Amino acid sequence: MGIPNLQVALDHSNRPDAVAAAVSVGHEVDIIEAGTVLLLEVGGEVVQTLRNIFPDKIIVADTKCADAGGTVAKNVAKYGADWMTCICCATIPTMKAAAKEVKEIQVELYGDWTYEQAQQWLDAGISQAIYHQSRDALLAGETWGERDLSKVKKLIEMGFRVSVTGGLNVDTLELFRGVDVYTFIAGRGITEAADPAAAAREFKDKIREIWG
Amino acid sequence: MGIPNLQVALDHSNRPDAVAAAVSVGHEVDIIEAGTVLLLEVGGEVVQTLRNIFPDKIIVADTKCADAGGTVAKNVAKYGADWMTCICCATIPTMKAAAKEVKEIQVELYGDWTYEQAQQWLDAGISQAIYHQSRDALLAGETWGERDLSKVKKLIEMGFRVSVTGGLNVDTLELFRGVDVYTFIAGRGITEAADPAAAAREFKDKIREIWG
Repeated sequence: MGIPNLQVALDHSNRPDAVAAAVSVGHEVDIIEAGTVLLLEVGGEVVQTLRNIFPDKIIVADTKCADAGGTVAKNVAKYGADWMTCICCATIPTMKAAAKEVKEIQVELYGDWTYEQAQQWLDAGISQAIYHQSRDALLAGETWGERDLSKVKKLIEMGFRVSVTGGLNVDTLELFRGVDVYTFIAGRGITEAADPAAAAREFKDKIREIWG
Repeated sequence: MGIPNLQVALDHSNRPDAVAAAVSVGHEVDIIEAGTVLLLEVGGEVVQTLRNIFPDKIIVADTKCADAGGTVAKNVAKYGADWMTCICCATIPTMKAAAKEVKEIQVELYGDWTYEQAQQWLDAGISQAIYHQSRDALLAGETWGERDLSKVKKLIEMGFRVSVTGGLNVDTLELFRGVDVYTFIAGRGITEAADPAAAAREFKDKIREIWG
């Protein structure tokens, strides 16, 4: 079992706050994500800013692409994105078109996807998936449970590298003990902390404690 | 049966081309859409440009929102978007959060959605849906068929106002004769024409001929 990566999601609604957050924690994490909210608000060029500040980090454009995969992927690749996300209800041709333009595609799991669909993603050469508790579901009172964990485990058994995200903090990491999670994604849990770099280091320390 | 609206989708990867296209056809259509590709590339402020040029048209932000509905909706509403799209695999809390911030939500139908889900959208007060042939599916050789038409009709029977889009041209409008389509959405079929305004008028004329 590997040691899971830590990814910071920048989901600010303006560029200065996003870039400031990136600078404050980027060197502490493995992967830096330009979140969907941020991309829709300020456009893809922010990926270039992240790329320039962090030439050696993996940069993800969280486009949640549902269509026009090739165009969306070309647009974020030109700014230096390594990975890009597609929404699970995108068609296989959309995912394949996107996969040609960036290093890796990650499938974002929302709503009622099936394992049959998941097998189609694998068959199409896409082996990263992101399992969410959506922000709105969390606000509506939902939380991580056994049902989520069994889905994550099943996806890992199928051959996916699985990222998990949604309301994660240092304590909820314990829930995943024994599970071969590829990446933990945290947003405000890190960027809104009084000391974001310290918060990221706490995540990393806890990850090493559990998976090291 | 009403006369369907005509919506132009601006799916350019840069602001000048999108705004030029909007100016060339905006006055000929009923609804102007800032497409997903455009929003991800240049950011939401382009909606403000469209709003200022076309104060009396309906402006749609095609965010295909999957999460953080309230934030995404607030961000496009502040630029003057009337409507916003959510992807069909978004959760109901996401759609409801978005619906509080803009005048209307449209559900974008991709992948394997179900009529049970569709009923949940109606129950949540969301009564617009967009039926697609995805651009990538079209590129992969798929086209409009009886299966699509029966789904569109069923959604209309359920109480949705249904927009249809994907590879539409003046000839394919005939396929929908007798169907109470709410809006036809065309992108390049209009904006890439030698004379975009004339192309939009041709669409409108054909719509009036069939549904008038």
